[in-house]
Amino acid sequence: MKGYREMTKEELIQVRGELIERYEKCKALNLTLDMTRGKPSPVQLDLSNDIYDTLKDGFKTAKNEDTRNYGIAPGIEEIRKIFADILGTDKDNIFMGNSSSLNQMFDAIMRAMVFGEIDSPKPWSQVEGRKWLCPAPGYDRHFRVTETMGFELIPVPMTENGPDMDVVEELVKDEKVKGIWCVPCYSNPDGIVYSEDTCKRLASMKTAAPDFRIMWDNAYVVHHITENESERGKIPDILSLCAEAGFPNRPYEFASSSKVTFAGGGISCFAANPDNMARAKKYLSVQAICTNKVNQLAHAKFLPNAEAVDKHMRKHAEILRPKFEAVQKVLKEELGDSGLWHWTDPKGGYFVSFYAFPGTATKVVAMCKDAGVALTPAGASFPYGKDPDDSNIRLCPSFPPVENIVKAVSILSVCAKITAIDKLLEE
Amino acid sequence: MKGYREMTKEELIQVRGELIERYEKCKALNLTLDMTRGKPSPVQLDLSNDIYDTLKDGFKTAKNEDTRNYGIAPGIEEIRKIFADILGTDKDNIFMGNSSSLNQMFDAIMRAMVFGEIDSPKPWSQVEGRKWLCPAPGYDRHFRVTETMGFELIPVPMTENGPDMDVVEELVKDEKVKGIWCVPCYSNPDGIVYSEDTCKRLASMKTAAPDFRIMWDNAYVVHHITENESERGKIPDILSLCAEAGFPNRPYEFASSSKVTFAGGGISCFAANPDNMARAKKYLSVQAICTNKVNQLAHAKFLPNAEAVDKHMRKHAEILRPKFEAVQKVLKEELGDSGLWHWTDPKGGYFVSFYAFPGTATKVVAMCKDAGVALTPAGASFPYGKDPDDSNIRLCPSFPPVENIVKAVSILSVCAKITAIDKLLEE
Repeated sequence: MKGYREMTKEELIQVRGELIERYEKCKALNLTLDMTRGKPSPVQLDLSNDIYDTLKDGFKTAKNEDTRNYGIAPGIEEIRKIFADILGTDKDNIFMGNSSSLNQMFDAIMRAMVFGEIDSPKPWSQVEGRKWLCPAPGYDRHFRVTETMGFELIPVPMTENGPDMDVVEELVKDEKVKGIWCVPCYSNPDGIVYSEDTCKRLASMKTAAPDFRIMWDNAYVVHHITENESERGKIPDILSLCAEAGFPNRPYEFASSSKVTFAGGGISCFAANPDNMARAKKYLSVQAICTNKVNQLAHAKFLPNAEAVDKHMRKHAEILRPKFEAVQKVLKEELGDSGLWHWTDPKGGYFVSFYAFPGTATKVVAMCKDAGVALTPAGASFPYGKDPDDSNIRLCPSFPPVENIVKAVSILSVCAKITAIDKLLEE
Repeated sequence: MKGYREMTKEELIQVRGELIERYEKCKALNLTLDMTRGKPSPVQLDLSNDIYDTLKDGFKTAKNEDTRNYGIAPGIEEIRKIFADILGTDKDNIFMGNSSSLNQMFDAIMRAMVFGEIDSPKPWSQVEGRKWLCPAPGYDRHFRVTETMGFELIPVPMTENGPDMDVVEELVKDEKVKGIWCVPCYSNPDGIVYSEDTCKRLASMKTAAPDFRIMWDNAYVVHHITENESERGKIPDILSLCAEAGFPNRPYEFASSSKVTFAGGGISCFAANPDNMARAKKYLSVQAICTNKVNQLAHAKFLPNAEAVDKHMRKHAEILRPKFEAVQKVLKEELGDSGLWHWTDPKGGYFVSFYAFPGTATKVVAMCKDAGVALTPAGASFPYGKDPDDSNIRLCPSFPPVENIVKAVSILSVCAKITAIDKLLEE
């Protein structure tokens, strides 16, 4: 087939007419398809339905502590050990939270706002014009945390190896720049795995702010989709890298079981070096006596080590893979390799990042909505919701069944083609 | 028996010698008894061991929502309804937290610190010399929250009807005074139930700060010890009282299931009027996607309404009553009604407040420690840990078995007598 760029105006108008006909037919179906957020599907959640049966043997830890009672603020040792193994660090660097790692990130920055970091000249709330680096496209909820706390969000372009480090190294020369959001393994939404070089440069770069922080959200560290071991994302331990580079206080790392067990009832943790941990504990001990240790014990009994977690995650992958493959298949069939559009083919994580013809993403999402397909708003993956190219659309294929994904991505493709032709006709 | 005050110096020395002999005998037993904190005992925790069996029927709410997945940020409706009934408010005024209500209190004040309250001239972190009212004796962890956030802690004397309102009404004329801690039902540690008049005065008093807040920690709202219905503490709904008085934004109320189900794995909530709730949600929606709804569902199924909670709490009372009675019995037998010491006989809550002869509490706690009896540090119930009378000692009889309570309180009594005699001999 002839590419749109090679077509005459008349040919484009002809093709457009056929596409509009398809689009109207789709609309007539009155579909309600939802690809807005990275939610596990019920079948995935079913994998963990028996998690509380593990408590039949009692509520005691290996050390004979009663998880039903107060105490053990950092979380029970067995679960800290599992997360430590997964993150490649020591259990003493781990502090367990409740179900949400986002909550732990929010709290960490709130502490810095009110009390400052260990190496802060003053609390961050007193820093006028404070700024935060946001590799984009990235996770909208990350950006919203620092926006809410009064940081100016500075976008950083993403490369296939992670944030563009030339740009980052330049930006951190500004002492108002206090930190950076990172999803190092299968980034949200691009599915990019940071290269070792990127990680090392992040760990070792000179920052004007003495209290610069990397918020290392290792949300998808065990969330591989590929069966192929060699294709799996692997990330060095950021705590060690920063310590080796002479900046041990730089990173806070986060992880959770939200997409391992239950998104609405899992457990989370953060990891930090001893100095940051000691300072955090000073405030965490005032904030609460402990987190939910019964749930920690259930998790530790249900998935007693990193190997068990990996085995469990392979079951998730079995469920997710056909969905991600369906997205690729439909996009390839519908849009081919014309270069007008492109999209990612991630080996893990929860998203496919689709890049519509520049200047059309908002229109594509609106047209999809009119046809009953709910997508994440265009621009959502950028600071302030503004994609300078109006191109990126985050696709979340985890929740709907394959047949709905096929329908939704077909409609997306039709809309992408119509809007691209409209742009080409304007040229 | 002759009272110490009526004895001659020689008689006192004689009695002291006998007491020291008793004390040394106790020491020789090498006891390790712990009455430091208000922890439920294992037998109490056993009452809720089957809580997760309720999830056998599935993880769906009455509205067919999947608690295992993201969403429903304020918490599932059935559990909000139960807490609303208990607190005498509406379910829409309730926002569920994770296991710790202290965590919700900390977070509420952190939000005020960084963002200010709805009626704040500026965020509290920017208020130099900010102050907080601390009815004392009170809960040490409350005091620590506001101390950590840079408030000057202003003690307020307690009366048998709650905080001394004449003092409170005077203190709130200072615009730097931003709030007050209250445990209105079975206060920690005195077990005082605020009178209706106290509640109304708190709700209707004029405060210089437009953003004055009552932190209403209804921690023991269903925690009656007495069997006698008419002796049970009952507190009016503070949200309604404040609204009626024209200060609807004044209160935040808190409660949890820590001493209903599991102290290390329960659920908590806060209650607020619509305007405060809307403002809190603005930030809570940035902080986390949701709290642990699976645990909320388990609780709602296990204790499906306020009546079920009351029935459950009566089982707790059955276990706690003999322990509280043992404390009263030993204290009465050992110390009688000489007026040198006094103590509370609460109808609910978790503590007995013991008042040693003024100037001796620190010594009593130290002597008890040497005899293997761990007590809450003297002064812990006062701002900055400083009891001006060095008299109050918080006794926590919930955790140890009765026989240990008898031993511990006997030793406490011996130490109280020795130290009182020492003081009398000094006079």
